[in-house]
Amino acid sequence: MIITVIGLGLLGGSFALGLKAKHTGIHIIGVDNSATHAAQALRLGLADEVLPLEEAILKSDVVVLAVPVSAIARLILPVLDKLPENAMLIDFGSTKEQICSIAENHPRRKQFVAAHPIAGTEYSGPEAAFAALLYEKTMIICEKEKSAPAALALAEQLCRSLNMPLRYMQAAEHDLHLAYVSHLSHISSFALGITVLEKEQDEKNIFDMAGSGFSSTVRLAKSSPQMWAPIFSQNKKNVSQALDSYIAQLQRFKAAIDAEDEAQASALMAEANNIRRILG
Amino acid sequence: MIITVIGLGLLGGSFALGLKAKHTGIHIIGVDNSATHAAQALRLGLADEVLPLEEAILKSDVVVLAVPVSAIARLILPVLDKLPENAMLIDFGSTKEQICSIAENHPRRKQFVAAHPIAGTEYSGPEAAFAALLYEKTMIICEKEKSAPAALALAEQLCRSLNMPLRYMQAAEHDLHLAYVSHLSHISSFALGITVLEKEQDEKNIFDMAGSGFSSTVRLAKSSPQMWAPIFSQNKKNVSQALDSYIAQLQRFKAAIDAEDEAQASALMAEANNIRRILG
Repeated sequence: MIITVIGLGLLGGSFALGLKAKHTGIHIIGVDNSATHAAQALRLGLADEVLPLEEAILKSDVVVLAVPVSAIARLILPVLDKLPENAMLIDFGSTKEQICSIAENHPRRKQFVAAHPIAGTEYSGPEAAFAALLYEKTMIICEKEKSAPAALALAEQLCRSLNMPLRYMQAAEHDLHLAYVSHLSHISSFALGITVLEKEQDEKNIFDMAGSGFSSTVRLAKSSPQMWAPIFSQNKKNVSQALDSYIAQLQRFKAAIDAEDEAQASALMAEANNIRRILG
Repeated sequence: MIITVIGLGLLGGSFALGLKAKHTGIHIIGVDNSATHAAQALRLGLADEVLPLEEAILKSDVVVLAVPVSAIARLILPVLDKLPENAMLIDFGSTKEQICSIAENHPRRKQFVAAHPIAGTEYSGPEAAFAALLYEKTMIICEKEKSAPAALALAEQLCRSLNMPLRYMQAAEHDLHLAYVSHLSHISSFALGITVLEKEQDEKNIFDMAGSGFSSTVRLAKSSPQMWAPIFSQNKKNVSQALDSYIAQLQRFKAAIDAEDEAQASALMAEANNIRRILG
C-alpha cells in the first residue's frame, strides 16, 4: 500500500512510523514544503521517498493531510482534484467544521474521511515523531455518513491496526468539545507562561520553583504558534465562548480569595475535584 | 535523633520516610488529629509511634510542622512554648509571611527555621507519601538570620542528606514568587476543571479527549481544598495580583482570537514559548 503523508511533522511522522511498525508492505511517500524537514524525515525513516505534492498524490492509495489546519483548508480541494479514483484522503486537523464545509460539495467528497487523532506532545517537527504516539489514542471521525463505505472502512482499519479506539461525531460537535477540552487548555497554559515570565525577571526563580505545579500547567505553553494560531481562528466562536467561561470562573475564585471566603473557595475547589472521577 | 512530625500527610510522611531511608538511628514520633491517618502512618512506617502533641514535643530533638498553613499559624506559638531548649522547629508551610510574623517575637524564635520544600503531588494523606518525594527538590529557607546558627545548621544538614538544594530568601519575597509560580498554577487548574465539567455533561467526552493536553493542565485541580484555601487566604494580596495579570493575558488572547488576528496570537504564543529556555 502506498501512503502519501503531507506534512512530515509530529502527527504525520508518527502515523507513518506507527504503520510501518505494525505492517509490512507499506510504502510511505513524504511531502513537505520544508526541504530540511523532508531530509530529516528520510533520515529518520518517516518516509521512504520524498516527492512533489501532485506526483505523490497520483501514485497513492491513501493520502494523509497532516499539516496545520490553515494549510489543510488550502490544500483539501486541490488534493481531492488529483486524488486517484480508488484512493482515500484522510486529514488530521484539530478543527473539523471549516475543513468539512470546504470539502462538502467536491465531487470526490466520498473519498475523504475527516478525522482527528487525540494525541500530541508539546513538541513538533520530524524529530518529535515516534511510532507509539498514536497507539491506543482516540481517533475521532466526523460526518462519517459523507464518506464512502470503502473509504471509511480503510480509515478505520488503519486506525484499529494502531489500536486506536474510534469515536464518531458531527463536525460542529467536535469543534465545540475540543474548544473546551483541548484549545482552552492550550490558551490557559500560554497565558500562564506569559504571566510568570513577565513577573519573574530572574529566570532562576522559575526554574527552582517550577516543581510546585508550574511545570505541568505550563507544559503546553511550549506548543507551536504556527500550528495553534489557525486552530484558534477556525474555532473562534467556540474558543471565545470557552475563554469567557474560564475567565468568569477565575473571577469567582478571585472574589472568594479577596473576601477571604475560605468556604466559597473550598466549594469551588471541591467542584473542580470532581475531575478525579474522570481522570483518576 | 527523635523527630516529631506533626501532620502525617504527603509532605510530613515523605520527609519521615526519606530521612529513615538515608539515616539509621532516626526515631519518628507522629502527631495527627485524625486517628485514621495516625493508624495508616504507623502501618506504612511513616512513624514509629504516635503520641499526643505535647508529649511528643517534650521528647523531641526536631519538630516538623507539616500541616495546612492555617494550622501552622495556630500551632506555632503553642509548639514553641513547649519546645525543649536545644530542639529545633521547622515548618513546611507554602506561605511564609504570616507564619514568620506570628513567630517573630516569641522568645524561642531562634529555635525556629521557616522552610518550604518545593515538592508535592496532587494527592494528599499518608498513603500519598513516598521516600523520594523530597529528594533533589529545592528547599527554600526564609529569614535565616532569625534562626540560631545551630538550628539552621541542623535544618540544612537534614535537607542536604535528602540532596535538597537550598535557597534563601525573605518571607515577603517567597510569598510573591510562589503566588506566580505555584498558587496561580493551582487556581488556573481548578478553574479549568470547573469550566470543562460544567460544559461537558457527558463525562465520557472528557475522558476520551483528555489526551489533547487537558489532563496535564487540569492535574492540579485534584488538589486538596483543605490545604489550599488557607494558602490563598494567607497570600491573598499576591495571589489576587497574579490573578489580575493572568486574566489580563487571557483577555489579550481572546481579543486576538476574536479579531482573527493570527499575527498577534502568534506573537503572544512566541512570548510564552520562551518558557522552553527555562523548562527545556
